[in-house]
Amino acid sequence: MTITSPQNPKIKALLALQQKSSERRKQGLFVVEGLRELQHCIQAGLEVTTLFHQPDLLPALPLNKVPTTYEVTQSVYEKIAYRGSTEGIIAIVRAKPTKLSDLRLKAHPLIIVLESVEKPGNLGAILRSADAAGVDAVIVCDPLTDLYNPNLIRSSIGAIFTVPCVACSSEECISFLNGHGIQILTAQLQDSLPYYDTDMTQGTAIVMGTESTGLTTQWRTAANAHIRIPMLGQLDSLNVSVSAAILMFEAVRQREGRKKV
Amino acid sequence: MTITSPQNPKIKALLALQQKSSERRKQGLFVVEGLRELQHCIQAGLEVTTLFHQPDLLPALPLNKVPTTYEVTQSVYEKIAYRGSTEGIIAIVRAKPTKLSDLRLKAHPLIIVLESVEKPGNLGAILRSADAAGVDAVIVCDPLTDLYNPNLIRSSIGAIFTVPCVACSSEECISFLNGHGIQILTAQLQDSLPYYDTDMTQGTAIVMGTESTGLTTQWRTAANAHIRIPMLGQLDSLNVSVSAAILMFEAVRQREGRKKV
Repeated sequence: MTITSPQNPKIKALLALQQKSSERRKQGLFVVEGLRELQHCIQAGLEVTTLFHQPDLLPALPLNKVPTTYEVTQSVYEKIAYRGSTEGIIAIVRAKPTKLSDLRLKAHPLIIVLESVEKPGNLGAILRSADAAGVDAVIVCDPLTDLYNPNLIRSSIGAIFTVPCVACSSEECISFLNGHGIQILTAQLQDSLPYYDTDMTQGTAIVMGTESTGLTTQWRTAANAHIRIPMLGQLDSLNVSVSAAILMFEAVRQREGRKKV
Repeated sequence: MTITSPQNPKIKALLALQQKSSERRKQGLFVVEGLRELQHCIQAGLEVTTLFHQPDLLPALPLNKVPTTYEVTQSVYEKIAYRGSTEGIIAIVRAKPTKLSDLRLKAHPLIIVLESVEKPGNLGAILRSADAAGVDAVIVCDPLTDLYNPNLIRSSIGAIFTVPCVACSSEECISFLNGHGIQILTAQLQDSLPYYDTDMTQGTAIVMGTESTGLTTQWRTAANAHIRIPMLGQLDSLNVSVSAAILMFEAVRQREGRKKV
């Protein structure tokens, strides 16, 4: 069946899921755009319920269960697509939230914790770097965005499906880390050591706050050590996703370096 | 004088400078938006020729020379502003390109070289990190964007004015680095060492290519060493501005660490 009008109820339902976190929460569904992202999503075991594709373009996907599929005209596709994509595929996927108790951690895990991160694009960028650094899990505490925001998925280039990602309260997270003997390193400018003077080879959680207000007292108090990235310039400012990448790759450096010895 | 119409020739001229690199080049002028960015711009010694501000809002600026100043109505301001800013100030500034020969380098400088960087937003993000890492200069070779692109200035949050930034050909840059005895480290996946196994305490240029095609043979051949960031995940991919930050902060780590010994 070809959908020719943006007023079609299927299209309206798709747009509602893209635009409203309340709709995503209510229905337990979200939207994935792009072939690569969708491949990672399916590999992660998520269920695609509906596929929309451009005329004459339906790439082969390793689906377990055949979803309802609609061809849409070029003009309808342009209404629903974020990017002027050559891939031409958008899917509705069933959400399957990961819980703390679902995490299967290896010895000496490396975990990134983000408190109240505001911008979905920053969270997506952090997930992309976390994939590259082989991070075991990203835990988002008291999030102000849901993990199925389209900007987040897009900027993660699919890492939201390759890196275990959990949303929970700060309290639950601290109790989980303490229970697993994972040291807590909080990124903060005050009362802190340069990050490279801290041992990150043991089980480690690197905790970062928002760009505007930093970490809450709850986290500062729970920390085993406070770490900072030295600021040698005039602006005293790094993007939160850049800071996260610098810190997680310091852990990679310390761990990979140690293997050789 | 208050400008009330977006059809006003002054407003049209401003929009042309914002939108067209050809116009910026022809007139030798560019546009800076935001109070913080403008403060750094003035501190860098650049000349503000024209100021546009929202009604009843003209912040004190440390100007040497009083520019032509226009108040614009709220609706006109919304036409010319990128962001829904509370700062309400936009300026036209005279370009003053830095040349390689203008660079005053300290002993053992740290330089970031970017070949054919495509996205102004990425270049701006790299400049922001370069400010924080105390990088001596960012050199953009054979650029596909001009250094006065509004996206670049915005994403640099003003670092385009605090970090010396030069545009030149790859040939000129290689000859400059060789002439100053600065080692060339190229970021590439093939035939490379992990970045943390390379000494970055001597004068060092870290050279990065585009996200799509990487570095040209010219740079790979000119390199003293090839370095890579290990990819431990499934996506094999880092954002170029994140990669740049990881590499420049490794130089910071090695250099700051050495000071203590």
